Amino acid sequence: MEEKNQTEHQGTSNVHQIKPIRCIVKLGGAAITCKNEIEKINEENLKTVSLQLRQAMVSGSSSVKFLGMDWSKRPGISDIYSSVDDFREQPSLDSSSFIVVHGAGSFGHFQASKSGVHKGGLNQQLVKAGFVATRISVTSLNLEIVRALAREGIPSIGMSPFSCGWSTCERNIASADVSMVAKALDSGFVPVLHGDAVLDDSLGCTILSGDVIIRQLAAELKPEYIVFLTDVLGVYDRPPTEPNAMLLREIAVNEDGHWSVVKPALAERNRKVEITVAAHDTTGGMETKISEAAMIAKLGIDVYIVKAATTHSLRALSGELKGNIPDDWLGTVIRLRR
Amino acid sequence: MEEKNQTEHQGTSNVHQIKPIRCIVKLGGAAITCKNEIEKINEENLKTVSLQLRQAMVSGSSSVKFLGMDWSKRPGISDIYSSVDDFREQPSLDSSSFIVVHGAGSFGHFQASKSGVHKGGLNQQLVKAGFVATRISVTSLNLEIVRALAREGIPSIGMSPFSCGWSTCERNIASADVSMVAKALDSGFVPVLHGDAVLDDSLGCTILSGDVIIRQLAAELKPEYIVFLTDVLGVYDRPPTEPNAMLLREIAVNEDGHWSVVKPALAERNRKVEITVAAHDTTGGMETKISEAAMIAKLGIDVYIVKAATTHSLRALSGELKGNIPDDWLGTVIRLRR
Repeated sequence: MEEKNQTEHQGTSNVHQIKPIRCIVKLGGAAITCKNEIEKINEENLKTVSLQLRQAMVSGSSSVKFLGMDWSKRPGISDIYSSVDDFREQPSLDSSSFIVVHGAGSFGHFQASKSGVHKGGLNQQLVKAGFVATRISVTSLNLEIVRALAREGIPSIGMSPFSCGWSTCERNIASADVSMVAKALDSGFVPVLHGDAVLDDSLGCTILSGDVIIRQLAAELKPEYIVFLTDVLGVYDRPPTEPNAMLLREIAVNEDGHWSVVKPALAERNRKVEITVAAHDTTGGMETKISEAAMIAKLGIDVYIVKAATTHSLRALSGELKGNIPDDWLGTVIRLRR
Repeated sequence: MEEKNQTEHQGTSNVHQIKPIRCIVKLGGAAITCKNEIEKINEENLKTVSLQLRQAMVSGSSSVKFLGMDWSKRPGISDIYSSVDDFREQPSLDSSSFIVVHGAGSFGHFQASKSGVHKGGLNQQLVKAGFVATRISVTSLNLEIVRALAREGIPSIGMSPFSCGWSTCERNIASADVSMVAKALDSGFVPVLHGDAVLDDSLGCTILSGDVIIRQLAAELKPEYIVFLTDVLGVYDRPPTEPNAMLLREIAVNEDGHWSVVKPALAERNRKVEITVAAHDTTGGMETKISEAAMIAKLGIDVYIVKAATTHSLRALSGELKGNIPDDWLGTVIRLRR
């Protein structure tokens, strides 16, 4: 797998990149914000996710002293000087390459839907204002996530897709410059991108989702694996709140993009599960998620969908699942049929 | 002046740009933050500056109802819905093109100097941490400035030079992509850039100052005029706190870049003033400022250095000074000798 990735990197001629990327992590909006309260971060989850990311990045060093990298003034915390001085002589840790992409959750959603940013029309004052308001909301979330990661010693760098020059045409990606992301990685940083309001050549503007950003980054940078951190254990055959909802443990994707559930073994019921999944998917939920994931898996990249801030997410982030899936691991693996 | 600018725009072949730029505004760190208190914004000044910017952008419409564009949750303010609904049918105002660039003031300075980010050396853990900490601090200031402008109805868009792909080599600009800035302007937004920590091809990293960013934007986008908002009335012949310090009202720049004070008329004392200015400039202060401004004025762009949040700054921002300088205007004009 590693060798294959490295070969593919050399073939990506338009991207300046030396280090292979290990993992792209999606922090789902539902996992890191409180969905029902406007602009409220789920601090506890975010802290655990940040801690797990550090553990996964710097393997075997969970006990190593680390340098917090958010030196900003914070309420209730007076002294940031002493910890800085401790690290004057500390050599750099060699954290392997991760990219973080986060959703919006309860940030940006109200602003975008109130003004219809996703439908375009920047000549209308309300849409233009909504575009500004949406970017303010999602960039404030981005800043808080960058700070949470930095406090755990992760050298995180906020990078807005809008500023990086990403734009769309009819909502499809028209321009997606990943060169700055690659340069930041090469310099040892962890780029933190997010779903964003962007310019659209045809509509004027629209919303670019975190999932579409991940698909683009995956295609261009070929990470070893991708982890989607969500607020449920994984992908189910029906809404997980329903009785008898069954966790789909492994989905195999063919070269042509078609996919089917291989674990739990369902044999003749396969087709029925697919239909059920599609049927309950009125809000771009699981069917969209599986389809997006299947497109990534087609590239030979493992996709893990797992509940954030659990032992299962730590194992996924650490790359434990690259071979066989342990029986006691709960989550959904989507990968190329072997 | 306008005609000349438009001709020059057409000559800038590598930048996609339709609208001519009216003004680039530098919000000096000293004017918008409290210099002696770490990470504290001068809220009163920032509010006045934002108001004046709106007045300057939308000429003759100071009484027009405007739509605040920061719809984020704020302490003590409960309802953001009603004002949004008021503007559902409002047509877009045609604000002329402005770019805002701000300094860091009491943001970023501690983080950068504590770790030596400007000297480079990303292989040292302290420098890497300082880079992350500096970017957190300056982007949090950027977000607050974008929000303050948006609350006054200015369609402001935060754009970090790092994310836009700006980088240096030996501290000189190596790459400065202004295409996204131009696209944002063309879509009717006001880009808000800032002094930033950036990658340096030779040193690893360094600090890119707001003044250098302005010089680059001026050369590429050719605005009609540039306003530096500071915490003193303008450029003096000696530190303004000294008795008898004299405000230099107009400085004329020759095609070769040499400059001299033309107002107040000093005749035989000209040379002495220049030397005095240079002599007290130990911290990259006024001499640097005049030299930077002279490089811009050489391009045929008027530069006004003026105290923020005064009637003088409003007149400068509004473009009142393009012809003769009124006697009752206080500030420093630096422009091509006529």
